Amino acid sequence: MKTNYQDIDRIHYEGRGSKNPFAFRHYDADAMVMGKSMRDHLKFAMSYWHTINAGGTDMFGSDTIDKSFGQSDPMARYKAKADFAFEFMHKLGIGYYCFHDVDVAPEGATLAESTRNLEIMTDYLLAKQKQYGIKLLWGTANMFSDRKFMTGAATSGNADVFAVAAGKIKAAIDATIKLGGDGYVFWGGREGYDTLLNTDVGLELDNLARMLRMARDYGRAQGFKGDFLIEPKPKEPTKHQYDFDVATCVSFLQKNDLMADFRMNIEANHATLAGHTFQHELRMARVLGVFGSIDANQGDLLLGWDTDQFPTNVYDTTLCMLEVLKQGGFDKGGLNFDAKTRRASNDFEDLLLAYIAGMDTFALGLKKAAAIIEDGRLDRFVAEKYASYTNGIGKKILDGQVTLESLYDYAKDLRDIDVASGRQEYLETIINSILFD
Amino acid sequence: MKTNYQDIDRIHYEGRGSKNPFAFRHYDADAMVMGKSMRDHLKFAMSYWHTINAGGTDMFGSDTIDKSFGQSDPMARYKAKADFAFEFMHKLGIGYYCFHDVDVAPEGATLAESTRNLEIMTDYLLAKQKQYGIKLLWGTANMFSDRKFMTGAATSGNADVFAVAAGKIKAAIDATIKLGGDGYVFWGGREGYDTLLNTDVGLELDNLARMLRMARDYGRAQGFKGDFLIEPKPKEPTKHQYDFDVATCVSFLQKNDLMADFRMNIEANHATLAGHTFQHELRMARVLGVFGSIDANQGDLLLGWDTDQFPTNVYDTTLCMLEVLKQGGFDKGGLNFDAKTRRASNDFEDLLLAYIAGMDTFALGLKKAAAIIEDGRLDRFVAEKYASYTNGIGKKILDGQVTLESLYDYAKDLRDIDVASGRQEYLETIINSILFD
Amino acid sequence: MKTNYQDIDRIHYEGRGSKNPFAFRHYDADAMVMGKSMRDHLKFAMSYWHTINAGGTDMFGSDTIDKSFGQSDPMARYKAKADFAFEFMHKLGIGYYCFHDVDVAPEGATLAESTRNLEIMTDYLLAKQKQYGIKLLWGTANMFSDRKFMTGAATSGNADVFAVAAGKIKAAIDATIKLGGDGYVFWGGREGYDTLLNTDVGLELDNLARMLRMARDYGRAQGFKGDFLIEPKPKEPTKHQYDFDVATCVSFLQKNDLMADFRMNIEANHATLAGHTFQHELRMARVLGVFGSIDANQGDLLLGWDTDQFPTNVYDTTLCMLEVLKQGGFDKGGLNFDAKTRRASNDFEDLLLAYIAGMDTFALGLKKAAAIIEDGRLDRFVAEKYASYTNGIGKKILDGQVTLESLYDYAKDLRDIDVASGRQEYLETIINSILFD
Amino acid sequence: MKTNYQDIDRIHYEGRGSKNPFAFRHYDADAMVMGKSMRDHLKFAMSYWHTINAGGTDMFGSDTIDKSFGQSDPMARYKAKADFAFEFMHKLGIGYYCFHDVDVAPEGATLAESTRNLEIMTDYLLAKQKQYGIKLLWGTANMFSDRKFMTGAATSGNADVFAVAAGKIKAAIDATIKLGGDGYVFWGGREGYDTLLNTDVGLELDNLARMLRMARDYGRAQGFKGDFLIEPKPKEPTKHQYDFDVATCVSFLQKNDLMADFRMNIEANHATLAGHTFQHELRMARVLGVFGSIDANQGDLLLGWDTDQFPTNVYDTTLCMLEVLKQGGFDKGGLNFDAKTRRASNDFEDLLLAYIAGMDTFALGLKKAAAIIEDGRLDRFVAEKYASYTNGIGKKILDGQVTLESLYDYAKDLRDIDVASGRQEYLETIINSILFD
Repeated sequence: MKTNYQDIDRIHYEGRGSKNPFAFRHYDADAMVMGKSMRDHLKFAMSYWHTINAGGTDMFGSDTIDKSFGQSDPMARYKAKADFAFEFMHKLGIGYYCFHDVDVAPEGATLAESTRNLEIMTDYLLAKQKQYGIKLLWGTANMFSDRKFMTGAATSGNADVFAVAAGKIKAAIDATIKLGGDGYVFWGGREGYDTLLNTDVGLELDNLARMLRMARDYGRAQGFKGDFLIEPKPKEPTKHQYDFDVATCVSFLQKNDLMADFRMNIEANHATLAGHTFQHELRMARVLGVFGSIDANQGDLLLGWDTDQFPTNVYDTTLCMLEVLKQGGFDKGGLNFDAKTRRASNDFEDLLLAYIAGMDTFALGLKKAAAIIEDGRLDRFVAEKYASYTNGIGKKILDGQVTLESLYDYAKDLRDIDVASGRQEYLETIINSILFD
Repeated sequence: MKTNYQDIDRIHYEGRGSKNPFAFRHYDADAMVMGKSMRDHLKFAMSYWHTINAGGTDMFGSDTIDKSFGQSDPMARYKAKADFAFEFMHKLGIGYYCFHDVDVAPEGATLAESTRNLEIMTDYLLAKQKQYGIKLLWGTANMFSDRKFMTGAATSGNADVFAVAAGKIKAAIDATIKLGGDGYVFWGGREGYDTLLNTDVGLELDNLARMLRMARDYGRAQGFKGDFLIEPKPKEPTKHQYDFDVATCVSFLQKNDLMADFRMNIEANHATLAGHTFQHELRMARVLGVFGSIDANQGDLLLGWDTDQFPTNVYDTTLCMLEVLKQGGFDKGGLNFDAKTRRASNDFEDLLLAYIAGMDTFALGLKKAAAIIEDGRLDRFVAEKYASYTNGIGKKILDGQVTLESLYDYAKDLRDIDVASGRQEYLETIINSILFD
Repeated sequence: MKTNYQDIDRIHYEGRGSKNPFAFRHYDADAMVMGKSMRDHLKFAMSYWHTINAGGTDMFGSDTIDKSFGQSDPMARYKAKADFAFEFMHKLGIGYYCFHDVDVAPEGATLAESTRNLEIMTDYLLAKQKQYGIKLLWGTANMFSDRKFMTGAATSGNADVFAVAAGKIKAAIDATIKLGGDGYVFWGGREGYDTLLNTDVGLELDNLARMLRMARDYGRAQGFKGDFLIEPKPKEPTKHQYDFDVATCVSFLQKNDLMADFRMNIEANHATLAGHTFQHELRMARVLGVFGSIDANQGDLLLGWDTDQFPTNVYDTTLCMLEVLKQGGFDKGGLNFDAKTRRASNDFEDLLLAYIAGMDTFALGLKKAAAIIEDGRLDRFVAEKYASYTNGIGKKILDGQVTLESLYDYAKDLRDIDVASGRQEYLETIINSILFD
Repeated sequence: MKTNYQDIDRIHYEGRGSKNPFAFRHYDADAMVMGKSMRDHLKFAMSYWHTINAGGTDMFGSDTIDKSFGQSDPMARYKAKADFAFEFMHKLGIGYYCFHDVDVAPEGATLAESTRNLEIMTDYLLAKQKQYGIKLLWGTANMFSDRKFMTGAATSGNADVFAVAAGKIKAAIDATIKLGGDGYVFWGGREGYDTLLNTDVGLELDNLARMLRMARDYGRAQGFKGDFLIEPKPKEPTKHQYDFDVATCVSFLQKNDLMADFRMNIEANHATLAGHTFQHELRMARVLGVFGSIDANQGDLLLGWDTDQFPTNVYDTTLCMLEVLKQGGFDKGGLNFDAKTRRASNDFEDLLLAYIAGMDTFALGLKKAAAIIEDGRLDRFVAEKYASYTNGIGKKILDGQVTLESLYDYAKDLRDIDVASGRQEYLETIINSILFD
């Protein structure tokens, strides 16, 4: 693989069988699936932090790839990053991106300075968006990297930190609105505790709710029509994070009367760190009415941290897209590759190869998910499984025409209830037959 | 250790330093701690299933201890079990017990037969309660062992199974009321899914809510004043159980408007299977207003299943009792030893030794928790940590007198915010000093 | 799916696209892959315990399927089981089976009685083998279910238990030889500890070695030419099992000079419980020269116990078969489905569907593994990655012509060493292209 | 807690009940335990990397504490670090330290430059050692942080990287010998693989052996009499590390004939990441004859990464010291606090508080471990458990006077073997009684 990043033109669809590493074998943007183009189904987004900034550092080693783009002056560097970012998305045909405030502009010594830098850079990004026809999927504020956030942002014990966090959110919402973003994300990496010994959980949860309400009120007052999104993660960097998983976030939103404005941004790797499958979290969000957007990546279930790998498992992307299709597709969300190349994948070519891997894996997942629906065997099996609720005692149960006493009378002499097999192995065979036949 | 079970009289408090295996070194029922007797603080209960029925079977081996009590006739055997149970509690000075319907009476061929058996046996148990001055902490119905519950009870795909489950709950609530129980528990071991491929999660969750509402309505109509309790567990036997953890249960109760009648029965080993500490689940229940009762045991964090060990870790019981004391003690709940002797602890003496271990560990935990409160250093540290919310900008935040904009203005020129150290190592030293000095 | 088990004839290959649940879509026994038939590559075996005996019991519930085969007399029941077993294998075209002593014959009150029963039944099985042309892959003795093994068999603290275990091994080796088995397996489910507080690890490990040496000596003296196999598992039912994983077993075999006669029986689900991938354990066995046989199944990485699911993940079976092909195929081992139908898959039809799922998943994995080798990109990548060891300083390193000092001199002024990218994302794309194109 | 780091004099023993945060309550260096001073039993060492260099960075945030010591020039900074380090150890009364090459000297552009820097700094350290009477416990080379080690050091695919690694080891062994170190450690953070798809495991393991042999040969030739130590860790940063756990390392050492010179440096947090207890790894090292040294810290079993917390759990330190005492104490090893203050413990005072926490926790563990031995109940229980091997058939088994056949004859008519209870709950009560009475 001798091709240099610079020499690689736009990535094209070449279809199955192509051995060109720099081509799509499944993602054909204009191809129609169930009446909608792949592009519109998938709404791929680039994550600015991993793609444009991260250099391969891990807890035991320094960067392996240089992303300074030849610039030492901070503002010049961030402009060079933006130049690269849009060219990169253009090469791949990606239509959206996502960012934290600190990803796109240098931090100043004060909030005011940082905000001015952000304003300069969002002007620059806005011009780029128009030039390339690329949109902002969502924005957010980084409230976890700086030392002042070490014990939380909205949940810090220090009220000044709460205030700075609020100010950062204001600036990031302004930036998101300016750039036409469809969503604004809250990921509470430090909103939690390292030890209960020093933590007033009740106060911290109330403060978190205060912050979200203020953000909602401010955003709506500024005309923001997009989704406010919470991104659940159970732990890391903090021992326990309050946004543990979808159900936990819903309990918080319900208690604080925030269900109307907030949805979930679900990340595959966060799901598994919480002990759930990716599909589980998507299903729960769908059932609980809070499905919003997706952070597409893949974890390693034998490792206990967020590996943020590019998604290459077709089972996972198929089941993900099945949930998305059942949901009726994305409303204001999309598929953001919150994924980083492995530390040893230290060429710019790897960035392309990784995105191609992820995009093709999701494109294939979409086609397979559509095929599962069209095949119909799974849906029919589920319908039959619950058929007893469509008439007789089952219908009465659903219609609320029973009590414990009436059900006792109904059931008291029943013998030999024959519960139908769950047929898990057969259903997995159906999935395999659709994936591999 | 040559003593035979039969030769061992009531277990007495002998205090620290005693080497008598059949004596308490910490549990002194009438000793006062923070103005209340240990007995009333701890409200120990015996779990009927583990103590009177379980024989050591695991997935790879059969029973190691014979608990047939010399009887082959079913009803005679269950009476012999009850005789043993009350003598056993009496030996230990345990004031409460907990049971599933099938623990205390033989199952019949129909719900009606099983109910008749249960009625006979609850007559017998009621007499025993009066004889020994022992009370029922809570009752429940086993809706997970029989084959018909293989895909759920309230969440079964089969409406007849739902009906039988409802009938069993009715009978078990009747039994609980008759025996004066303070609580009625729902543990949904089969309420969940093994694979999402065959599961209609939305319907199942709605059916679960229907069942809980009917149970609540029936119980209240019969005059039951106790708590309805949900016992969270994330998995096992089912791949995913809907009552994953406290926060998940609260999201369900809120959505279905059941918060007024339901509280949590928190089990240590279930907490850790969900990725939480025991203290975390207790704290969340306290903060969310659903603290009810405790299933006292201990898991092995290096094993992925419910080991239900007798609690012997004093750190855990101290932090548990700290939450209980902060809660103001048990209302209608108590400490039920949902714990089983190890498979290789196959003597009846081990039953006593195990309960002594658990009771002493909790008694010591109670004393240490009280000492932590009396010491005051932890509480003072926490108060100081959040002191900035008692005045100035912090107070305004709590009082709702701020917006994102006003906070931006406040924060925009702040420099060098000095966030105080979390002092985790020091706080852990304080705990150690109280435990070991 | 209305077909009854009895009405289903032999399972035939119908190829991709078939929607007949009772047909193979990938396993075509006589089809040739890399010069060998699928039958000979895969050497499928039926696990007697799961398939013929297990009824769906789990730790929280009783059987869901009746496998008494209409017989109440013990010996008659075991013959009926054998009748069913061979018909079942015949239906599926499975050529091998595996058993524990207690799977195939009723246990007597003494070792002598059990042995007599085993002799009767092995006569019966031998006749069946001839009738159907089916072979024994391996035999073993169950030394974990009976209560006397509760603290170990070879590692029990009780010398009589050691003696009984030795006697059982003798009888099971005799049975294995009589039935022409190619292997004899040791799975030490109770060979480990529940707590170090009561365990003399050194003595127990020495006793385990004593037992294995005696077994080896006895087997070889009786003319057994097959493999002695250790089946690693890290935990469950015992907290820690001495045969934790392949590397641990090798350390034990090396220390006790048993490497010449013992190989590994590697189980997918045991690998993941040890924190490894299935492929890892296969690779380690291959590299360390102890690759023997495979227990084919699949675990759930989000669950902490041995779920023994039928394998349906094609990624896993492909990487497994890639290791098998690189190894040069099975010598005396094979693919034993140490897998059980889910508890809710409670029909006999599910048994067929599950085996079809497993066999097809492995057949597809075999074809894909062969395709990976034929494709060559992976092998070439690896060869290039290490090319620097084929000449220059690298070759000297391999040839032993260097020292720390000479390497220091060589390296002391090197700058800018350019380490090639690991290209993980690209390599995963190659795998996907071979699986899905 | 207003005291400033600078104002705190040497930390003294004040004994139980002291509420001075900057005093020992258990560590009384000259106090005798089982005939040896605490100082000599515990041999505490400071980890240079965590204590002198690490600033609180984690994967999601930057430093929270400034350890530049007011110096910008590299060499001046490393001297200031050394000044601080020795004063710090002196304050605490710590007698040993451990380092990687890059911890104590700035890296140059080449190996030669780095080596010169190391030589300058080891002169400086040697003078400090003499001034303070502090010794080097062990040295090592960091072969994981620099980008060139991204795919391994001894196991890199690039032979130049192997050569540089060899050169670094030479320089680090020279430094260790010069400073009188008792050990030289290998921690292979990058010696493993991220994906098997690109890895030649056999070649890599052989190269690792080549490196260790050369290091051994060089060190011995230079007169090094200390231990070569391998520090097992299963994963992180690499997906799989070859030195997974003690047993895995032993299998490697045996295969490569390195058992005579290598022992284990066992870290608590690494043990748990491998699925073992800390005590398990210590026990295995003891039983397998490779017990060397200890990296003292504590993990969080609910988190899946190396948290390197200061040890504050007295159960763990008691069981650790029990293994150390049974081993006969440290030979050339010691207790190195491979632990870092929490990110939010961002004062220099926290460094002292954390070390005090760790030292006191181990001192208490030592006293309790001695008490367990003096108490004798545990040892007697174990002796009785295996008593059947001291005579009769058990003695014959140990003496090698039996065969499978003779044991079959012995056992064939045995009935009702009575295996003694394991008494786990009782044994845990004994531990508690010794810890808390």
